[in-house]
Amino acid sequence: MLLIRRLRDTALTLTRQLNKTSLSFKRGYSYSIKDAIVLQINGETLKFPHIWLRDNCQCEQCFHPSAKSRILDWSKFNLDSKPTEVHKDENSVQVTWDDGHTSRYRLDWLKFRSFTEENQQQYETELYKPPKVTWKGEDFQKICTINDYNEIVSTDEALYKWLKDLSTYGVSLIRNTPSDDTAIDAILQRVGFPKQTHYGLKFIVQNVPNTSNVAYLSSNLQMHTDLPYYGYCPGVNLLHCLVQTNSDGGENTLSDCHYIANYMKEHHPDQYKILTNTEVEWSDIGVENGNEFYKLYRSPVICVDKCDHVWRINFSIPQRGSHFPGPIELVKPWYEAYSLFFELNRKFSASFKVDAGSILVFDNIRLLHGRNQYQDSGENVRKLIGAYIDWDEVYSRLRSLKVKLEKRSYY
Amino acid sequence: MLLIRRLRDTALTLTRQLNKTSLSFKRGYSYSIKDAIVLQINGETLKFPHIWLRDNCQCEQCFHPSAKSRILDWSKFNLDSKPTEVHKDENSVQVTWDDGHTSRYRLDWLKFRSFTEENQQQYETELYKPPKVTWKGEDFQKICTINDYNEIVSTDEALYKWLKDLSTYGVSLIRNTPSDDTAIDAILQRVGFPKQTHYGLKFIVQNVPNTSNVAYLSSNLQMHTDLPYYGYCPGVNLLHCLVQTNSDGGENTLSDCHYIANYMKEHHPDQYKILTNTEVEWSDIGVENGNEFYKLYRSPVICVDKCDHVWRINFSIPQRGSHFPGPIELVKPWYEAYSLFFELNRKFSASFKVDAGSILVFDNIRLLHGRNQYQDSGENVRKLIGAYIDWDEVYSRLRSLKVKLEKRSYY
Repeated sequence: MLLIRRLRDTALTLTRQLNKTSLSFKRGYSYSIKDAIVLQINGETLKFPHIWLRDNCQCEQCFHPSAKSRILDWSKFNLDSKPTEVHKDENSVQVTWDDGHTSRYRLDWLKFRSFTEENQQQYETELYKPPKVTWKGEDFQKICTINDYNEIVSTDEALYKWLKDLSTYGVSLIRNTPSDDTAIDAILQRVGFPKQTHYGLKFIVQNVPNTSNVAYLSSNLQMHTDLPYYGYCPGVNLLHCLVQTNSDGGENTLSDCHYIANYMKEHHPDQYKILTNTEVEWSDIGVENGNEFYKLYRSPVICVDKCDHVWRINFSIPQRGSHFPGPIELVKPWYEAYSLFFELNRKFSASFKVDAGSILVFDNIRLLHGRNQYQDSGENVRKLIGAYIDWDEVYSRLRSLKVKLEKRSYY
Repeated sequence: MLLIRRLRDTALTLTRQLNKTSLSFKRGYSYSIKDAIVLQINGETLKFPHIWLRDNCQCEQCFHPSAKSRILDWSKFNLDSKPTEVHKDENSVQVTWDDGHTSRYRLDWLKFRSFTEENQQQYETELYKPPKVTWKGEDFQKICTINDYNEIVSTDEALYKWLKDLSTYGVSLIRNTPSDDTAIDAILQRVGFPKQTHYGLKFIVQNVPNTSNVAYLSSNLQMHTDLPYYGYCPGVNLLHCLVQTNSDGGENTLSDCHYIANYMKEHHPDQYKILTNTEVEWSDIGVENGNEFYKLYRSPVICVDKCDHVWRINFSIPQRGSHFPGPIELVKPWYEAYSLFFELNRKFSASFKVDAGSILVFDNIRLLHGRNQYQDSGENVRKLIGAYIDWDEVYSRLRSLKVKLEKRSYY
């Protein structure tokens, strides 16, 4: 945990440096104390800018209580509002503005939104998104928690724990799932709703010759992310194993690309840079249920934000298009980096055979997954039911449950 | 069109410079002619790297014809494959590799994928995404095409033309829509399928007191993008006007933020930089149809990629959260830049009252939209049916239609 905290500190510092850099382009703006109210809250000295306070007045003229939304008319908003009076009592502070308007803020509400690095970090971890913990193959048994289908369906505690594990490690298993094509629906409904793609709201993974997708073959399915050719690539993949193969093969392989990306950054910085900077074109062209699709999307293998923080992985051998959108000089180095990434994912992967009755759930924009070749027979036809759900819905459910389970309001 | 081409050239040059910068971190790699096959195609001298050719062999051992996918086993792929024989005839080239494998490529297939800037640009414009054309308020009547509901539903030509206009200008109108709550479904089905959000697959815009969303009030709705608190923010917004108000007001206001962003970059570069670099937190918290949601998403107002190319706009007065995730020094300058952006959007906006029977369709991650205050009466209750569809599906449909209408295959 210490390491995670340290990494998060570094990221935060980088963000701040970046933000400060952007400020250096500005007209030497310096933030003077007279633009803010200074309050002592629980022994901390905290500053709150006037403009932010005025913008976030919580009275019913400025803030709609049921829509939990600001209803200020921005065309009349005064960027230079100043308080004429500030009165603090035990639990709140009342500010009278120079236009006569009065605002009241609870002190705990203010503290949770204050601008110190420590308080901002607390807000982020507690409410915005739980921090991720990376892993490699040998850690898999420890980090992949096993959750019970009926508990997730019936209790908020189990639902919360499962989603938190999933967001932290990017993978988790659900056991004791009824042997029914629609069993996965109850799980999807507990979170929100499935993400539709051109393969439908759900899909069946079974051996189909002359298929529109190589995942519907029984041959070796090399490690990949699903649907990298979608700009809005499905966030979470749920695969309910109804029938597992009795033949050799059929095992799943998983790897945590956040671990691989960190590893490459340290040990192979040139290749890391190539994979983060070079857009390639992901592709899927065909017909499904009579509907033609022609998906193309350009994106690097490792997508990083301005703080060099990985937010999405794209990887597929079959679904990388034949068009290479970069300059010819980059072709060979890019293939070398891509091959290295693939090799590292194989090296640091975990392999296991999912039982019938289990749902394997994983972060599709973080992990690679694959499956070994298998052989169907007359009585034993391997069958999975798959569905996707987006991170928007998972994080939303996590926050709603947190508020409910901890019986607290952040407003 | 010349200006667009020039802007696109600049963007391409920037991409190349960026890619080259990344290469300078590499081991002085230089791309020698011996790593590529040189071909004369239609009078052009074109180079194709060996590794790319081997990777894109189109034979049935390497490429699955119905899945249109590469089926090479990458763990056995030789990054240093060399041709031992190259034989070109009128329409194709045959390459024999040093492992004995033979590949054949059509010359037109190769040319369309070649690595010259000109050919890459042609591929991008023809197939990947049609270029955008920006506009300001006074251009609105010219750029907003009027399309017919029945033609879109019944002919591919009308569907293609409408989607191309929408992707180019970010807005278009559909007239003669049946006065039915489900009329919009036929349009959604022609493109693909709607994007679900926590407000459902479709939503009704009508005055509702004590609402979970300020859009469901009859008061002035300030210009905004819908659902900026979604990481996967809905791409296209369709609003079918079933009943327009007879009262004053109810007009829509639209502005093209790609125009505004270019304008700010030129005239207010500091504020542009602040809006592209500073993440703020977009927020929506409530209950809809018994389902709790707690959406938060951090993103700048103007989202740009590595080439400083705008790809998403986030803007909302009501749905910007009260937590400011940046450093306190940035608060005032950010509010100033945000207010300027809002003012410029108002200044360069178009305003008009949509007729009953029209569907207003616009790019939700490019345009701001708003609505003036109105007044319902007993016999006249304003009513819109809304739905979203993502750009993944729109561009996919555009490409599928292009192939169909032009009777050509890109494979």
